[in-house]
Amino acid sequence: MGKEKTKINVPGFLANGISVGIKEGPQKDLALIYSSVPAKVAAVFTKNTFKSAPVIIDAERVKKGLAQAIITNSGCANAATGKEGYQDAMTVSAALSKQLKIKEELILLGSTGVIGKKLPVKKIEGGIGKLVKGLNEFGIEDAEEAMMTTDKYPKIAIRRGIVGAKDITICGIAKGAGMIEPNMATLLTYVMTDALIDVKALNTVFHQAIDSTFNTISVDGCMSTNDTAIIMANGLAGNNPLERAQARLQRFRDMLTDVLTELSLAVVKDGEGATKFISITVDGAKSRSDAKKAAYSIANSNLVKTAFFGEDPNWGRILAALGSSGVPFEKEKASITIGGMLVFSQDTPAAIQLNKLQGIYQKDRIDVHVQLGNGDKSYCVYTSDLSYDYVKINADYST
Amino acid sequence: MGKEKTKINVPGFLANGISVGIKEGPQKDLALIYSSVPAKVAAVFTKNTFKSAPVIIDAERVKKGLAQAIITNSGCANAATGKEGYQDAMTVSAALSKQLKIKEELILLGSTGVIGKKLPVKKIEGGIGKLVKGLNEFGIEDAEEAMMTTDKYPKIAIRRGIVGAKDITICGIAKGAGMIEPNMATLLTYVMTDALIDVKALNTVFHQAIDSTFNTISVDGCMSTNDTAIIMANGLAGNNPLERAQARLQRFRDMLTDVLTELSLAVVKDGEGATKFISITVDGAKSRSDAKKAAYSIANSNLVKTAFFGEDPNWGRILAALGSSGVPFEKEKASITIGGMLVFSQDTPAAIQLNKLQGIYQKDRIDVHVQLGNGDKSYCVYTSDLSYDYVKINADYST
Repeated sequence: MGKEKTKINVPGFLANGISVGIKEGPQKDLALIYSSVPAKVAAVFTKNTFKSAPVIIDAERVKKGLAQAIITNSGCANAATGKEGYQDAMTVSAALSKQLKIKEELILLGSTGVIGKKLPVKKIEGGIGKLVKGLNEFGIEDAEEAMMTTDKYPKIAIRRGIVGAKDITICGIAKGAGMIEPNMATLLTYVMTDALIDVKALNTVFHQAIDSTFNTISVDGCMSTNDTAIIMANGLAGNNPLERAQARLQRFRDMLTDVLTELSLAVVKDGEGATKFISITVDGAKSRSDAKKAAYSIANSNLVKTAFFGEDPNWGRILAALGSSGVPFEKEKASITIGGMLVFSQDTPAAIQLNKLQGIYQKDRIDVHVQLGNGDKSYCVYTSDLSYDYVKINADYST
Repeated sequence: MGKEKTKINVPGFLANGISVGIKEGPQKDLALIYSSVPAKVAAVFTKNTFKSAPVIIDAERVKKGLAQAIITNSGCANAATGKEGYQDAMTVSAALSKQLKIKEELILLGSTGVIGKKLPVKKIEGGIGKLVKGLNEFGIEDAEEAMMTTDKYPKIAIRRGIVGAKDITICGIAKGAGMIEPNMATLLTYVMTDALIDVKALNTVFHQAIDSTFNTISVDGCMSTNDTAIIMANGLAGNNPLERAQARLQRFRDMLTDVLTELSLAVVKDGEGATKFISITVDGAKSRSDAKKAAYSIANSNLVKTAFFGEDPNWGRILAALGSSGVPFEKEKASITIGGMLVFSQDTPAAIQLNKLQGIYQKDRIDVHVQLGNGDKSYCVYTSDLSYDYVKINADYST
């Protein structure tokens, strides 16, 4: 993201991305991230009932708290592929284990692409030698590129800082675009760090950071079968170890949250067909879950999203979406503000200058603020508009 | 709907539809339905917190069980208009009461169009004389036309039959197109009948019939501020009275359900930008609400809807939407069938003939059948696809 290529590296991590012909054309479609030593690992997965084969395997393997490599293909989700899909993923795992000379249990897998399609195992197996041979310190961008599907640009975020008396690096890469919804609102996110951290502490801060970043975005309200976020911490920075309930853990969490914030916002900006970046903040709710429900009711309304795309200041649709959320509130106490302009309060439309409101709708970023007047809990959701291009991209995806 | 114009009438009901300039251009925008005698009435309204002024007034008035007229404007929803909007609606009610020489309590109101816009009361008041003067036995089609917004064609359904030893008529009109979602999945539906029926029985059968028709459709998952369904029964058929727990009431309910089925399916077919009619049936659920939740999770998925529009047989999206519904089931027991072709069962994709499946996606009507293998409850939802035209229509609605 504007950084020089040579700067994107994390001590002890090697990466690579190549094309093995899973996708048509010359695009990269196979990625590998490798830590020179086994790393502490934590992960968050989709809650979809139809979890992909890689998700099923990873969820089991991360329980031991250690991982050393993540291999990921784009062009095929290996989801809804049953036992055969599971075997295919295990075949990839075994082949990589052999090449890297590490235990299979230390290998994690990722897949993204069309659901219900058989994984082209032979192509992947055939490419693993080249993939491993090409591993290098500055290969993270190639790996990210190989994970992309309908993404328009790669999403990489990096932070460096002193934690526990040493310089540490946290670098994350993400693949997003469509099927973006909370409960892991991204298809794939991998974070690499050289921080030395206790696995329980890693697990806690990773879940916290995901909850306040990827779990607050939405592109189309669709939750995928493959959503996976993994963090690997290889400890090579040699910092004073980070453990639970330590002040320095807070510093690490802030850096991690920074990285994930940058990635999650990049995922929304690169939402399929997105032309605008929209924040929906709901304040004054009785509970955080009420605020969240109301915010998503607005963020996922096709009528709200098309109005933003069309720059049509039809604020009544925001009101209708809010009112249909099922969240209890008194309409007399609620208010709606768009881009700083009050449009509705005390059950009455405000005196709106239509051309000024139109101007707000014409901006690239639009902030919607809802006050429910029913408590002190809040939630903020980031989303995008619904455009012709969303329909176009998704009307012709698999064929 | 294919019937001759002169046939659309219900004994004792007069109607009319005219243009009073609420919409730009010559389109009709003010409708009146009038029964020569006070009629028994039942109604179902939106559950939106921001109910429109007409909904608030109607909900109060129908409690008495009698009504004689419904006046409806298109071009303005009179919702989110506060006390002023309420007063505006009351002004219309008073003016019509004077013209018709009936009590205000017998008058119901309907509005549809942009939310948050002030009702042009003067235009409506100015047109009421002409509207009442033009009331006629065959005016139902004009009334329907005046209720249309983005509807492409009028929606009228009529049934005649012998009930309680007399010929009775049931005729319904509906206005739909966008903001179509259960909990009254239509903006406005009015049903007229000359049947003689007890008001409690009317209320019961109307709710039952709505529940199995309008509450099972979805165009865009957006619930409006104005959704209203009203039935008026003026008793002029002189049939043996219909009361609760009578066999002949069942016959009336069947006819009514027929009328509402035809109207609700017409609303889906005329969904904004719709090019396909899609049914989603979920069987084998533990409860009806589970089946409903799963069916709507699929019906409201933008990724499923765009794939149907693009005729892209990407069935994995149906599976992903099902798996993200939050409904508990075992994936090994679930199956998905599209247009009679099994695509997924026993956690494994079926041997799909892609060109045959493509052929199914190319049809105007597509039936999706999901078996959860978890019980014996079912639900069926009717919906449409998501097209460029949906985005186009809704990106530029209010301005």
